[in-house]
Amino acid sequence: MDPLRHVKPAVRAVRAYTLAERDAAVKINQNENPWDLPEALKRRVLAQALARPWSRYPAFDPRELVEALATFSGWRADGILAGNGSNELIEALLVVTVGAGTRVVIPEPTFTLYALLTTILGGEATRVPMSSDAAGTFVYDTGALLEARRATGASLTIVCSPNNPTGTSLSLAEVERLCGDGDGLVVIDEAYHEFAGASVVPLLVRHPNLVVLRTFSKAMGMAGLRVGYLLASPELVREVNKARLPYNVNFFSQLAALAALEEKETLAGNVRRLVEGRERLLARLADVPGVRAHASDANFFLLEVLQADPKAVFDAMARRGVLVRDVTSYPLLARCLRVSVGSEEDNDAFLHALGTALSEAGGLVAGGKA
Amino acid sequence: MDPLRHVKPAVRAVRAYTLAERDAAVKINQNENPWDLPEALKRRVLAQALARPWSRYPAFDPRELVEALATFSGWRADGILAGNGSNELIEALLVVTVGAGTRVVIPEPTFTLYALLTTILGGEATRVPMSSDAAGTFVYDTGALLEARRATGASLTIVCSPNNPTGTSLSLAEVERLCGDGDGLVVIDEAYHEFAGASVVPLLVRHPNLVVLRTFSKAMGMAGLRVGYLLASPELVREVNKARLPYNVNFFSQLAALAALEEKETLAGNVRRLVEGRERLLARLADVPGVRAHASDANFFLLEVLQADPKAVFDAMARRGVLVRDVTSYPLLARCLRVSVGSEEDNDAFLHALGTALSEAGGLVAGGKA
Repeated sequence: MDPLRHVKPAVRAVRAYTLAERDAAVKINQNENPWDLPEALKRRVLAQALARPWSRYPAFDPRELVEALATFSGWRADGILAGNGSNELIEALLVVTVGAGTRVVIPEPTFTLYALLTTILGGEATRVPMSSDAAGTFVYDTGALLEARRATGASLTIVCSPNNPTGTSLSLAEVERLCGDGDGLVVIDEAYHEFAGASVVPLLVRHPNLVVLRTFSKAMGMAGLRVGYLLASPELVREVNKARLPYNVNFFSQLAALAALEEKETLAGNVRRLVEGRERLLARLADVPGVRAHASDANFFLLEVLQADPKAVFDAMARRGVLVRDVTSYPLLARCLRVSVGSEEDNDAFLHALGTALSEAGGLVAGGKA
Repeated sequence: MDPLRHVKPAVRAVRAYTLAERDAAVKINQNENPWDLPEALKRRVLAQALARPWSRYPAFDPRELVEALATFSGWRADGILAGNGSNELIEALLVVTVGAGTRVVIPEPTFTLYALLTTILGGEATRVPMSSDAAGTFVYDTGALLEARRATGASLTIVCSPNNPTGTSLSLAEVERLCGDGDGLVVIDEAYHEFAGASVVPLLVRHPNLVVLRTFSKAMGMAGLRVGYLLASPELVREVNKARLPYNVNFFSQLAALAALEEKETLAGNVRRLVEGRERLLARLADVPGVRAHASDANFFLLEVLQADPKAVFDAMARRGVLVRDVTSYPLLARCLRVSVGSEEDNDAFLHALGTALSEAGGLVAGGKA
């Protein structure tokens, strides 16, 4: 009797995506928005929730939300699907496209879920390492991506732009190059696009093989409520919708998302503050010996620890209540931590903790002395 | 250029699960609980939601909720997964078990999502028709299910008990027979188990191939917030968890589910009222000529329209503001509507609308005259 033999071998071989949860006074490890939604917005949503029976299903399709997303994004409503976070929509997209042997091109390092889901669904992920520019910053190697697409006959290419965890963007011209090369789907995860001030959504109208993913978890300040959306041609959306579960966005998250869309000016202001905070942090880190902070288009950046043990630096900061993300297990990132930009106070606390941690860990190289 | 060619043929061939949404004064078409959660509970949850930053992710694993579910269900916490509705968990289970050619035994008629997801994932659903007892009520044909399992070497058998839309239960002895026959997984969807007053959860301890699905959408009065859970052996849960998306249950639904578990006496009272209402309705329908109401263990029942056109009866009731579910397209149910048990007022309104609808549709056979 071995019920586990009915679990697919590819699933048994992979490890689950996990995150050790830790509490911290300064939590800059999940790329969250440090500022809560305005209290007036929250109270408005809560009043609507009180008036609504919780025992009744939400809309089968979140039609009102999808219409609002169409206005917000400038793309047609019949080309939009809303989901319980964008993770659910990448899963639905992969469920309808990936079977045994389907080839999927994915750069590395990037968000781990793309390759995990591809593998679980029986597909084969072809990983294309990022390269670096003269300044040592990670860049996408579009030539290598094109080559991998052609060599494998890939059905999908999935690019996170700006990329988690490197902060790298793919330019519109590069996305067009990928889309124009055959009919393989090009999936651009724009989870962090607001911090780059750029979007590939305008390309949708002339590229029926382009799929864009977006989320309310970062710039929109709604990580706790899980709302994401997918934008593509209506024909493709119709197929992905077959794997969307009915009632997938609960009524409360729908109400909150609609309210957040009405507060877009406030939220855009928070984005500007985060971008300013990022640039200020990067400028100050340029003067900190022993580390190299990578330029980024997102609300986080890579912190390369040059001499000290990055895990020791991570731990020393955590002991001081500053929690960043340890990404040393990612390919190419053996010396890196990922730091989310927080509030001004968070950023100051981080800089202070980093200084102490580096001197403790022996990684502070002041005045040229090792 | 045909991006749709990257969508799997099995997906292109199926039709999406849809539901035409209609407003109605008496909405007894979705097996919802007619009674909202107590206002005090709602206010408690809303106050917690106000205090909590919406911009921060929920727990990666909803640990507190899972612990509460363990206490509530009497099964170990490491054998429980919580999800965004039980639909999400049946999907995760199928994602880790179903690939090209995987055989899945599913009775019919039943909830359509099992076969739809099986097909989309490349599996082959073997449908086993229900049979009927001397009274003409649907029963599961356990012998035929066993035969189909053996003949196909099925990896999974999925049984909804009580069944949507027939209200049929599989007895504990029958579930044990299925579980004892080889190591193929036996999935029992207990979405409606509270209305039957029975559960197969006590069998989990000695059947590592048993998987139980439950939901907060029916007896627990939380259809609007989408919480479900899966119970199985810790070994199997560990594998299914690989396809569970991180942060899949948002913070608000977690808070509401925890609160609902504290109100279980109130909710159990509502279940008793619904069961009494169901039996009262069935007794009264026994005196209505032209229809046959099927016995049911759930909070709904099948209404067989004997002479009139069932769609005409459905429409005539809908025009009077009473919305039931048209299930005439399901196998074996060409003359059936599905009626959810509502509040006392809902049930009275339904009976009244049915009488009028039947006489309009020419299906009322009073005093033996056709």
